[in-house]
Amino acid sequence: MRIEIVALSALPEVRPGDDLALLIRQAAATEGQTMDRSVVLAVAQKVVSKAEGAVVDLREIQPSVLARSWADEWNKDARLIELILSQSRRIVKMDRAVIIAETRHGLVCANAGVDQSNVVQSNNEGADFATVLPNDPDASARRLRVSLECGAVIITDTFGRPWREGLVDVAIGVAGLDPLDDHRGRTDRQGRKLASTIIAVADQLAAAAGLVMPKGSGCPVVLIRGYEFQRAEGSTRSLLRKPEQDLFR
Amino acid sequence: MRIEIVALSALPEVRPGDDLALLIRQAAATEGQTMDRSVVLAVAQKVVSKAEGAVVDLREIQPSVLARSWADEWNKDARLIELILSQSRRIVKMDRAVIIAETRHGLVCANAGVDQSNVVQSNNEGADFATVLPNDPDASARRLRVSLECGAVIITDTFGRPWREGLVDVAIGVAGLDPLDDHRGRTDRQGRKLASTIIAVADQLAAAAGLVMPKGSGCPVVLIRGYEFQRAEGSTRSLLRKPEQDLFR
Repeated sequence: MRIEIVALSALPEVRPGDDLALLIRQAAATEGQTMDRSVVLAVAQKVVSKAEGAVVDLREIQPSVLARSWADEWNKDARLIELILSQSRRIVKMDRAVIIAETRHGLVCANAGVDQSNVVQSNNEGADFATVLPNDPDASARRLRVSLECGAVIITDTFGRPWREGLVDVAIGVAGLDPLDDHRGRTDRQGRKLASTIIAVADQLAAAAGLVMPKGSGCPVVLIRGYEFQRAEGSTRSLLRKPEQDLFR
Repeated sequence: MRIEIVALSALPEVRPGDDLALLIRQAAATEGQTMDRSVVLAVAQKVVSKAEGAVVDLREIQPSVLARSWADEWNKDARLIELILSQSRRIVKMDRAVIIAETRHGLVCANAGVDQSNVVQSNNEGADFATVLPNDPDASARRLRVSLECGAVIITDTFGRPWREGLVDVAIGVAGLDPLDDHRGRTDRQGRKLASTIIAVADQLAAAAGLVMPKGSGCPVVLIRGYEFQRAEGSTRSLLRKPEQDLFR
């Protein structure tokens, strides 16, 4: 089995209102990359958020009492803290200058996905803007997939995790593939039933794409060729572990 | 940027005492795959454990009181439970038939890495055997790297994680590369300092390799070509998050 992972390097800076599918199609054409139903396309959350206008001007935010108190304690921007709180439906941990939150999508990550890096507006006052996660990343993935006529689309973001150092890219939006490959019921080569083997292939694809989209490289779009995947409508909802089944929690 | 991920399919069933590097070299040669200093080789834990004889005959195990009580409650093999306990230095969770443990290597995973699938002995009484993790997976990786003259070696295993459904492959042994790519201090395209961006590239490589080594496929060896990595001795110790810095915990 052999797969190929290619980052598009010709994508311009994405701005609110841009037609992201068009920009991707043009970049792919420039680099001689053809799109077809065998391609899994991975797109970094940042450019999806920018194109969809999921960009917030911090000057319009009124920090709450909690946001101001936390910002004072940890020398943070109270408006940014307020934005993080507003993107959360549950605070998982809030300690030592770090906020880990469950977003309204059910994703657990630092700062509820709010990010200030590589955000620039046409008036060049970047310092006052931050991106939030797309409103419905599965829908974002579906739109890109329909428009680009590729096999599947994964929207990726870079998350920390418990126990292990460092961040990895994971899938926060999926269209066109089943994010889980369920081996239960299959047998190993000795005929023994495989126990509890459900592989989060969407996250493995996101991590693979992450290898060629290093932060700040300006390569937020990656084509994965040769990966045989289970075609399905797909949704990242199936990647969210139910609390009552989460023994790690 | 473009990387290629190729699984070797010609590897025979690995048995204790086998020279794994030799088997890999032969399989690569059969498939016309050349090894050089640009290749990152990913090898599934299972074949490393088998070759190193990290295979335990359950008939030789005397279950402790705890192992017997847990096995009774959840209809498990008390010898297997005892083996899991013996491989643990700390039990993280023990609930609803699942044991999540910290191994003596510091890895947090289900069943302390003990696994019964795809274990067969020459006398074909596979049901009584289980593999444990290699004694020192970094050392296993180093030996393979020296012998195969590739750029880096990663020993992978398939782990569950909190919050998210499904398993992903992660690195449990590393040689020849820095498992973390530290972007701190670098700036984004607008000159803003990138905050807390340390990428667990060894885990991203493991996940990418996992895409072409589906469970039970008999493809436990994967070559990754074209990935530019930070050369270093490397150790998975740097992938273990210190408890006092683990806000997810």
